Amino acid sequence: MPTITAEKLRQIAIDIFMAVGVPKNEARLVAEHLVEANLAGVDSHGVIRIPRYVRRIQQGRIRPGADIQVVRETSTTALINGNWGFGQVIALKAMNLAIKKAEEHGVGIVGVFNCNHIGRLAHYSTLALKHNMIGIILCNGPPLVAPFGGMDRILNTGPISVAVPAGREGPIVMDISTSVSSEGKIRTKRNMGKLVPDGWLLDKDGRPTNDPNALYEGGVILPLGGNVGYKGYALGLVVDVLGGALTGAGCASSEEYKGGNGVFIMVLNVANFTSVQDFKKRVDTLIRTIKTSRVAPGFNRILIPGEPEIQESIRRSKEGIPIDDETWRSITEIAKEVGVSISNQG
Amino acid sequence: MPTITAEKLRQIAIDIFMAVGVPKNEARLVAEHLVEANLAGVDSHGVIRIPRYVRRIQQGRIRPGADIQVVRETSTTALINGNWGFGQVIALKAMNLAIKKAEEHGVGIVGVFNCNHIGRLAHYSTLALKHNMIGIILCNGPPLVAPFGGMDRILNTGPISVAVPAGREGPIVMDISTSVSSEGKIRTKRNMGKLVPDGWLLDKDGRPTNDPNALYEGGVILPLGGNVGYKGYALGLVVDVLGGALTGAGCASSEEYKGGNGVFIMVLNVANFTSVQDFKKRVDTLIRTIKTSRVAPGFNRILIPGEPEIQESIRRSKEGIPIDDETWRSITEIAKEVGVSISNQG
Repeated sequence: MPTITAEKLRQIAIDIFMAVGVPKNEARLVAEHLVEANLAGVDSHGVIRIPRYVRRIQQGRIRPGADIQVVRETSTTALINGNWGFGQVIALKAMNLAIKKAEEHGVGIVGVFNCNHIGRLAHYSTLALKHNMIGIILCNGPPLVAPFGGMDRILNTGPISVAVPAGREGPIVMDISTSVSSEGKIRTKRNMGKLVPDGWLLDKDGRPTNDPNALYEGGVILPLGGNVGYKGYALGLVVDVLGGALTGAGCASSEEYKGGNGVFIMVLNVANFTSVQDFKKRVDTLIRTIKTSRVAPGFNRILIPGEPEIQESIRRSKEGIPIDDETWRSITEIAKEVGVSISNQG
Repeated sequence: MPTITAEKLRQIAIDIFMAVGVPKNEARLVAEHLVEANLAGVDSHGVIRIPRYVRRIQQGRIRPGADIQVVRETSTTALINGNWGFGQVIALKAMNLAIKKAEEHGVGIVGVFNCNHIGRLAHYSTLALKHNMIGIILCNGPPLVAPFGGMDRILNTGPISVAVPAGREGPIVMDISTSVSSEGKIRTKRNMGKLVPDGWLLDKDGRPTNDPNALYEGGVILPLGGNVGYKGYALGLVVDVLGGALTGAGCASSEEYKGGNGVFIMVLNVANFTSVQDFKKRVDTLIRTIKTSRVAPGFNRILIPGEPEIQESIRRSKEGIPIDDETWRSITEIAKEVGVSISNQG
């Protein structure tokens, strides 16, 4: 398993994307996004995606340099037609627009349709932090999740990320799926030959299973909550409605849905509600109260959402990013195919 | 266990509240709220609250007729000081203000502080439906929930309600706590002498327990998600931040928090993003797809969030509302105390 520096990985990604016709600014932006995910330890949304993105460009499904159009707009809301450009490019533009609106009018809400895979959601929500704003982003995607009590693939994994600025403490950065697991985690278990925990999957006949292969043989992921899975199911429905029905991307299980992500973004300007200083003091106190509370038997410590990713990011920035052999093989293969020499780099 | 008509229950509640000095319009509004909760089958938020509310009025903690002030305002946002009036009166005013803003500017966001218990959240979110808007409300409250990995009471049960208008189908109405259970459900189990399911509670020593009494002896409710409880924990944190830190009500575990609910409301005008007709068609299709999907082994049917409450409401409107003996005893007792004769009514 090779360990590669973030800088080298970024350059490899840029070179590969540019070799298949991606404009330099977009190649950089997507490369930056993918490597940041690897740095955070979220390898499922990192450079593992490069070969898939290249194939989609070659198939015409990702259209680099696409014209991203704001098709509806008010002072606080906007709807964006991504015209099937790179999801990362579209979502970044949408997030920046929401921040601008929140800066001027206290809140910014932006919906996005015709948009490819946008990657790791925390990448966007955290952009609001330096503006002293709360960043919220959620999206729908391919149907993989059963409604509570059902066994068909109706909902998507319903990811939501919320980033909350703190004062002296690190920010709170939630980035979760509203199903019991993301697809990426189940794929990782499968690739490593491991079982999934109880309560994650049903096989194609609706029977509970620990075999991750079941998902790829007609099985389905369960909504968050176990015996109260109606809660994760309801959250997943809301994500599908906001990401799919409100934006026009289409709900995950509908004929209208054409792949990629229907995206819903919301940015709240803290200063519009309370003093930024007071707000940050409250968040700091909340974080410190959690940090000084008693740890339950069976646990080592209590983490703040986003904390593991920040710690991993610091570590991998120093020590490099471990890339599993299969991912590295597929990246070097696609590099060779498009005429990029990896060994000469970095 | 007596069964009482909604009309009679409403009148009893109005009479009791007016007997302790609540203005008629507020008495009606709160009575309506409580009985609607009973009709929906959410008895924990129904007339069972009457004696507690009366005590709080007598203690000066609920101040009927309080001046509800908008202390900050933009075209799309507002912050309301409830001045410790009836939570239901304050939250209704806040919701109506958010709807008005969404009508005029596409979105309305209202925060509320100095606010008593606002009751059942779906009562407010569903008010957006007839305006073809999506209604969202969440609030913080007393700390009862452990962070993931912890055993101290830091977070509240973090309830969120989202109401989504449909076309020919019934609406989607999510109303959930982001802990594995609300406090009310655990109290109900205790009152009925039943155990709670695995994964709901830790006792005062942090050990998993099925005994609902443990919560009232220093125990703690767990966040939603079981072995992925970091998800419910993150959601609960976001609720505490939006309801407590952003509004100034104070986070649940802070000294600043003075009881009641810190409330965050958001209303989205569908027409600002997409055609209302198209939106409703998408939601209808989503609901029908769910309804025609296969039921998993061990389940009888798949419900849409909000559907059980609508069905129960229809049934109880016809057949009356069953009130458990203990609740009925406490209502008749408080009625007698404040000089309201129940037997002569209805």
